[in-house]
Amino acid sequence: MSVEEPGGDREQAVTDEVLASFAKTADPRLRQIMDSLVLHLHAFARDVRLSQQEWDAGIDFLTRAGHLTDDRRQEFILLSDVLGLSMLTVAINEPKTPGATEATVFGPFFVDGAPEVPLGGDLGHGAAGTPCYVSGQVLSPDGGPVPGARLDIWGADEDGFYDVQYPDGHTAGRGWLRAGEHGDYRFWTVLPTPYPIPHDGPVGDLLTATSRGPMRPAHLHFKVTAPGYRTLITHIFVAGDPYLANDAVFGVKDSLVVDVGHYRDTPAPDGSHGAGPWTRMGFDLVLAPEEAGFRAGA
Amino acid sequence: MSVEEPGGDREQAVTDEVLASFAKTADPRLRQIMDSLVLHLHAFARDVRLSQQEWDAGIDFLTRAGHLTDDRRQEFILLSDVLGLSMLTVAINEPKTPGATEATVFGPFFVDGAPEVPLGGDLGHGAAGTPCYVSGQVLSPDGGPVPGARLDIWGADEDGFYDVQYPDGHTAGRGWLRAGEHGDYRFWTVLPTPYPIPHDGPVGDLLTATSRGPMRPAHLHFKVTAPGYRTLITHIFVAGDPYLANDAVFGVKDSLVVDVGHYRDTPAPDGSHGAGPWTRMGFDLVLAPEEAGFRAGA
Repeated sequence: MSVEEPGGDREQAVTDEVLASFAKTADPRLRQIMDSLVLHLHAFARDVRLSQQEWDAGIDFLTRAGHLTDDRRQEFILLSDVLGLSMLTVAINEPKTPGATEATVFGPFFVDGAPEVPLGGDLGHGAAGTPCYVSGQVLSPDGGPVPGARLDIWGADEDGFYDVQYPDGHTAGRGWLRAGEHGDYRFWTVLPTPYPIPHDGPVGDLLTATSRGPMRPAHLHFKVTAPGYRTLITHIFVAGDPYLANDAVFGVKDSLVVDVGHYRDTPAPDGSHGAGPWTRMGFDLVLAPEEAGFRAGA
Repeated sequence: MSVEEPGGDREQAVTDEVLASFAKTADPRLRQIMDSLVLHLHAFARDVRLSQQEWDAGIDFLTRAGHLTDDRRQEFILLSDVLGLSMLTVAINEPKTPGATEATVFGPFFVDGAPEVPLGGDLGHGAAGTPCYVSGQVLSPDGGPVPGARLDIWGADEDGFYDVQYPDGHTAGRGWLRAGEHGDYRFWTVLPTPYPIPHDGPVGDLLTATSRGPMRPAHLHFKVTAPGYRTLITHIFVAGDPYLANDAVFGVKDSLVVDVGHYRDTPAPDGSHGAGPWTRMGFDLVLAPEEAGFRAGA
């Protein structure tokens, strides 16, 4: 508090009173979180000398975000994403295991209850786009296979829309499968394309007001689970995408960028698509053991 | 960042990338706010080593708050209130004028379009409770009257409910009037009682989890406006209330605590209520001149 702010003592008194109110919290972790939240929230308001009108604008922003949020639209996750809180939380919780596949943002478009597809099956379910054959192995950090790992995959179509954004909400570009006995996986979907995050709400207004774009580079989402391993939530990104250096949600990591092969008049590995255009991405997914997830004090 | 956190560089890189994304913001004030918000939000997440589950819980909390919020219930204001952000914002924006009446929280129960009552009229509109005659003067800091000032008043009934919490939502305990030519004001309402803030939502869950109570000491809300003066938003509190030292929203200031007179078999100043019980509170409202509201850099 600078000498120009004679209200500093009064302001500090508010913060002290709020911190004291949490003194009887039974759960020490909750108390730690609330104390830190209050300290940083109050420091923000004091640092910027928050006006009443700005406080009003903040309440209105959260209210609009809340009213826009439903089963298929999650404006609070978008807000966390564009403020980098989602990627920071990923970084904080990244396993320290050398060689494990890096994680990135979960995003707002995962839905429970996606259909299972067989190994090698098509989870595009008719989504518009160039067919893309994706394959690789699920591995442990020592290079051994993780047989039977569950892979949940979801992605946007060539128009940049996830199925949950379709007016009729039918399932497409989404599904799950189990890796084979050698940890091997393969499936068909459509080649992802860059797309804007939903920007017709308050988060979009924030991006506009700060001269930021809403685009995300093309990517395919993976959630990989297997007993004894930490759940991996990540994407693979399409090499050469113009938005790789400018992702609206800060999700790109170099290790997740994958070259795409483009084919025509060549059959795919499963013998299909001999005539039409198809594409291919290969990526191995290395899971960190569950033990690596523990951290002192967490 | 301590030496125990080898991910510190990676975490700092996320924060740096987000800050850089705001570099083209045209409005310097918005850029200042976003930079500070991101710095403090990220510092919070790093300080507590926020887990993915805790991030999930935060998203769920905001989602629930958003879905509960409507024209008559404002869970985000309640959240700001119980975290002391509302009172801190009041403190930051408090005029520096000596002698001006202190401000306190606006709260979530103000509504536009309340009925006008004549000077000396009854804005209780049938609210349950002991009749209370409230009077005083609206003054400038030099002691001169502020004739014609507009006073908006709202308060809870003896059951602790505001009219907007009634199932049928009829107007009661709420209205506005103009001060007389000497800045004098007087009206009837009902004596306020202590009440719990709405605590059947996520904010209530937070209070429970932190062993905090939801009660507010009895008070009556004032919003006072007059040309050339800063709008004053404040309460008067009832002296002797058991929750004065333990207000769920940290709104109490000693200068706003008012003694209540209790009368029976004595007519009120306007000759009414000669037989029944009635009460009286007197309080002068001193407005700061508008000029005092300007602050360097704001």
